[in-house]
Amino acid sequence: MSQIEELKKKIPTHITVLGGGSWATALVKILSENQVKIKWWIRRKSDVDFIRKYNHNPSYLTDVAINPRKVKTYHKMSDALHGVEYIILAVPAAFIPSTLKDLNKKHFEGKKVVSAIKGMIPDENMLVTDWIEREFNLPLGQTCVIAGPCHAEEVALEKQSYLTIASPNLALAQSFSNLLNSRFLQSHAIEDLYGVEYCAVIKNIIAMACGITRGLGFGDNFQAVLVSNAMQEIKLFLDAVYPETNRDLNSSGYLGDLLVTAYSQFSRNRTFGNMIGRGYSVKSAQIEMNMIAEGYYAVRSIYHISRQHKIQLPIIEAVYAIVYEKANPQLEMNKLKGFLK
Amino acid sequence: MSQIEELKKKIPTHITVLGGGSWATALVKILSENQVKIKWWIRRKSDVDFIRKYNHNPSYLTDVAINPRKVKTYHKMSDALHGVEYIILAVPAAFIPSTLKDLNKKHFEGKKVVSAIKGMIPDENMLVTDWIEREFNLPLGQTCVIAGPCHAEEVALEKQSYLTIASPNLALAQSFSNLLNSRFLQSHAIEDLYGVEYCAVIKNIIAMACGITRGLGFGDNFQAVLVSNAMQEIKLFLDAVYPETNRDLNSSGYLGDLLVTAYSQFSRNRTFGNMIGRGYSVKSAQIEMNMIAEGYYAVRSIYHISRQHKIQLPIIEAVYAIVYEKANPQLEMNKLKGFLK
Repeated sequence: MSQIEELKKKIPTHITVLGGGSWATALVKILSENQVKIKWWIRRKSDVDFIRKYNHNPSYLTDVAINPRKVKTYHKMSDALHGVEYIILAVPAAFIPSTLKDLNKKHFEGKKVVSAIKGMIPDENMLVTDWIEREFNLPLGQTCVIAGPCHAEEVALEKQSYLTIASPNLALAQSFSNLLNSRFLQSHAIEDLYGVEYCAVIKNIIAMACGITRGLGFGDNFQAVLVSNAMQEIKLFLDAVYPETNRDLNSSGYLGDLLVTAYSQFSRNRTFGNMIGRGYSVKSAQIEMNMIAEGYYAVRSIYHISRQHKIQLPIIEAVYAIVYEKANPQLEMNKLKGFLK
Repeated sequence: MSQIEELKKKIPTHITVLGGGSWATALVKILSENQVKIKWWIRRKSDVDFIRKYNHNPSYLTDVAINPRKVKTYHKMSDALHGVEYIILAVPAAFIPSTLKDLNKKHFEGKKVVSAIKGMIPDENMLVTDWIEREFNLPLGQTCVIAGPCHAEEVALEKQSYLTIASPNLALAQSFSNLLNSRFLQSHAIEDLYGVEYCAVIKNIIAMACGITRGLGFGDNFQAVLVSNAMQEIKLFLDAVYPETNRDLNSSGYLGDLLVTAYSQFSRNRTFGNMIGRGYSVKSAQIEMNMIAEGYYAVRSIYHISRQHKIQLPIIEAVYAIVYEKANPQLEMNKLKGFLK
């Protein structure tokens, strides 16, 4: 490392993190391994107070120690946005418009925005990065997304994890990637922002499909075929919506992200699907889980986009029919069986 | 369906199945759904006697009912080879040379050979189909392999499963595929025999790697990255050893097969790896399991072939070092961490 780089490492990078959930908490932990100053905005006032007092998030990843020398917690968002280089978005996509409603383009001027969100803005069928670009006039070259197979719960346990940082501005992706690397985390930078962002969105739908088939009693054999076919649907979708010759769908930012969600007990989208497979209505599954899985909105957006592009995506269509058209899960999956191979 | 096809369906196809393990038993069950006459050779005399008497295999998939009108069980191999159209090989690759030692090319003349084996012939570093071709002068156009994500245990439970049948002779693959389709099984035919056969072999090594890392305490995040990187190693290997432009590695015969093995509790290769990760020596893990996982031989063969082709396969190399060079699993996996992304 050159002397300049050494010096740079000693100057803290100022970062805002918006959101108090488990992934936001994991990112605060990851970043705190490096030379940073974090302004952490959390919606719930009682959580802010608790963290200020006890240096632990009372609601998510409660074991993670928050380093008070690096992290200041805020309840008023505008206070958390001053004098930072990066703004990390880590609230569910569905709440992005309401969460950011009081902000204007001044708040984002000259800053880099990092989306850690794996969902679509509902009703608009828009990726989060596209929505931010439109709403706040932020050039896409100032934006990047965090992807890759990474359960927050395992970050909390400091289990070795990997992330992929994507931005059309590769230098930005590389700089942000450097802020994440530590003894338990390795990240790398790529340019394919839309590819990994769409893939991250679709994988939540696939996790729902896996959950539904599990709930119906399908086994490992079927799931392996479902996930293989899902990779082909993802390829078909990306080739239609955002073609890119150098995309390697088998790298960890795409396939890995799908696997960790589709195969893990931690996945909320899979749990949501499982309940539907076991006979819960969509509404009662949501009430029971006390949250809305990202895949719930994602499937509607991805379904509509695929219709616009006239592509057939049997798995997505099956989940859409079950979730939005009250189709019977068993009948729908029996129909899907014939499409898979 | 045409009248000729209807008639054909009524004429039974005569098939020999060699091997009495769980996959052989599952194949007997699958084929028995269609119009077949099966001559089933099993090495152990007591198992043959038991099946003749009780119509159940006493050693594997003991719940599966064997249909005595379709299946005759044999202890003398030459008796089981008369008057059949297909010979299915379903014994571990390591035992193929000794199992077939009394046979000569006359036994195979005019017959089609189907390999259901996912391993290499030890010491020779040869695929089973290549070895059969050499030993019995059998043209590759009379050979096919069964691949795809399919645990025998789930076949026994009639859980929906899929298989891929590969042969350079696509008509043969299609004919054999037709014999497998039933209410709980769908198969399809492709031409890439070497591709799926090598992939099936390598996936057992990857399952060992997954087991080793699990045994060492790595989590879901790491495994997702390991499997993604494994797909890239498989691609590198196949592109070097047997390039094929139309190969879709994300289809279920390749990726699906890897997933079902890497992620499932049923996988013996994964269990073997897990024991090594938890501190068993290779020898004691083998003694404890009372069997030899296919991956144990496969990793030596694939390692040597990759060296001949001068390709770097970090995961394969790590498993080889642990299994054959007494490398410390923890140190080896820590080294591997740096190669993955």
